[in-house]
Amino acid sequence: MRQIIVAAAVGWLVGSAVALPARADPLLEKARELFRPIPTKPPELPGNPASVAKVELGKMLFFEPRLSAEHNIACATCHQIGLGGADGRPVAIGHNWQRGTRNVPTILNAVLDTAQSWDGRAKDLAEQSGRPITSAIVMGNTREGVVATLRAIPGYRDFFAWAFPGEADPITFENIEKALAVFQATLLTPDSPFDRYLAGDEKALSPVEKEGLALFVEKGCASCHQGANLGGDRYAPFGVVQRPGAEFLPPDDKGRLLVTRTPDDAYAFKVPSLRNVALTAPYFHSGSSWDLEQAVAVMGTAQLGVELTPEETKKVAAFLVSLTGRQPSIVLPVLPPSVPSTPRPRT
Amino acid sequence: MRQIIVAAAVGWLVGSAVALPARADPLLEKARELFRPIPTKPPELPGNPASVAKVELGKMLFFEPRLSAEHNIACATCHQIGLGGADGRPVAIGHNWQRGTRNVPTILNAVLDTAQSWDGRAKDLAEQSGRPITSAIVMGNTREGVVATLRAIPGYRDFFAWAFPGEADPITFENIEKALAVFQATLLTPDSPFDRYLAGDEKALSPVEKEGLALFVEKGCASCHQGANLGGDRYAPFGVVQRPGAEFLPPDDKGRLLVTRTPDDAYAFKVPSLRNVALTAPYFHSGSSWDLEQAVAVMGTAQLGVELTPEETKKVAAFLVSLTGRQPSIVLPVLPPSVPSTPRPRT
Repeated sequence: MRQIIVAAAVGWLVGSAVALPARADPLLEKARELFRPIPTKPPELPGNPASVAKVELGKMLFFEPRLSAEHNIACATCHQIGLGGADGRPVAIGHNWQRGTRNVPTILNAVLDTAQSWDGRAKDLAEQSGRPITSAIVMGNTREGVVATLRAIPGYRDFFAWAFPGEADPITFENIEKALAVFQATLLTPDSPFDRYLAGDEKALSPVEKEGLALFVEKGCASCHQGANLGGDRYAPFGVVQRPGAEFLPPDDKGRLLVTRTPDDAYAFKVPSLRNVALTAPYFHSGSSWDLEQAVAVMGTAQLGVELTPEETKKVAAFLVSLTGRQPSIVLPVLPPSVPSTPRPRT
Repeated sequence: MRQIIVAAAVGWLVGSAVALPARADPLLEKARELFRPIPTKPPELPGNPASVAKVELGKMLFFEPRLSAEHNIACATCHQIGLGGADGRPVAIGHNWQRGTRNVPTILNAVLDTAQSWDGRAKDLAEQSGRPITSAIVMGNTREGVVATLRAIPGYRDFFAWAFPGEADPITFENIEKALAVFQATLLTPDSPFDRYLAGDEKALSPVEKEGLALFVEKGCASCHQGANLGGDRYAPFGVVQRPGAEFLPPDDKGRLLVTRTPDDAYAFKVPSLRNVALTAPYFHSGSSWDLEQAVAVMGTAQLGVELTPEETKKVAAFLVSLTGRQPSIVLPVLPPSVPSTPRPRT
């Protein structure tokens, strides 16, 4: 009798998708050890407190093509929020139609990573935000150029004063980076089927997705792809067990060695987050695989020394699709107009 | 006594900003003869009825970089809704960093124009929408290329079926154009100070804006810039009275002659709408003036044979600023992901 009452209560709890503190099935228990849900609220950024004004300013700057030398490339040009926060290309096309050297990482949930860029060269979103602006192959601008432009747009003078109250001269490159970071920290995608599963809704994953999750754990994928982002918290050489072919791992790009100058870091890259991975083909730092199943198979041989069967690959890919969360809802900002004294696009 | 009662009633009406059917001041009466407010609802497009599905699909396509050859240029790249529907550059930069030949016209309120493009080469928004996609210097794609791409994105198959119900094969170039047109027809900017003035709120314009309006009418600007868009309904040679210098009127671009092949149409262009003109520098088909007051002065000498004083120019420009309406509020669409069989960006 007591068992029946408990079962009924548990059934009611499951039916209402309330988190079960205990008695989860072993797969869910294991998953909760390894992974965390995407938070619904942005984390605080050290030394860079958020405010309504700073988020709004950061959004304007994120969509602001006048950050670039010719006023035609914004952060949002390559980090398309409607395309999973990336650009769906192998490498980006930037200033003067120059091509980037690595696949554009998604900006969604990027705040949860321990460092930014494929090689972790930027310690946080603020530092990363300034780099494309001044990169000769991305936006082609200078620190001085972008500050001079924004200072000569009257609307921005008001917005920076609102976002950085009490500062005598708030339009600085550092404040541009800070506002961009605070906005980007809001770009979270909670509530994926996998997150609902972690919260205790065992029906949120289909049987094949659960099999994929079990394989993801058993085969060892989760030894690198773990935490809230299923990645983003460590570096690993591409080809731990077997170096992949040059089509996936071009020999010229030595990865994290460029940052640390340590030979051991040759061909090491940040383990990318697998959140929303179904939206962000092509894959790898080289943007060289257009097929999630192919990418899973390559990872198996290169990183784990495991030859996954086609069926296993399909199941793991099915699990990865369950990592697609609720995409950010962004109202396009209206940008303040230039005036005759605003610096013109360089030509 | 009766006069006092009438005056009190009129004062009450004016104070509540209710439209006055009669007894408006002569400037307002004149303005109502010449101009019309921007409608709050999109006009119907002949042969292309709007629906929620078609607007939503059109919005997705408007922000869709996969319409372009390299999947990096969307309609929204040059028609930035947050920058007055234009791009703030003299001419656009398109596929392969090629430069356009004329200033990007705003897409805001464009549906109210009688034809599209500076020379009226496209009869409506649907026809115009297809042109940049297949232009070698804008998006660099082909009709076949873009249709093949969208057909190979599963999410678009659903959206086109929803937007074009009953069609066996709804993903066609014509339907892409139709959906884009229906979305763009929603990009209206009603409720500018001038529109509120036309509606009877005589305080919506400041004294100097009213003086500018009076000059705009008296000097003859309104003989071309009239109607809802203050332009967009006719063609006029640039330099009716006095041909401007080559910096404003480059001799190589013969304007509407390219469309009609009629010598009389040499250097004729569509009279551009002045709606939101304060947001859309630089000016003229050549994108050669960065200063609204300069543009007003050039128009005075070139089109009217009138040398406006600096004070008159300032007043007319002040009136033109009152044409800035409520900018569209657009939630960025989430675009359906590519799959392994989706054609890849051309390189």
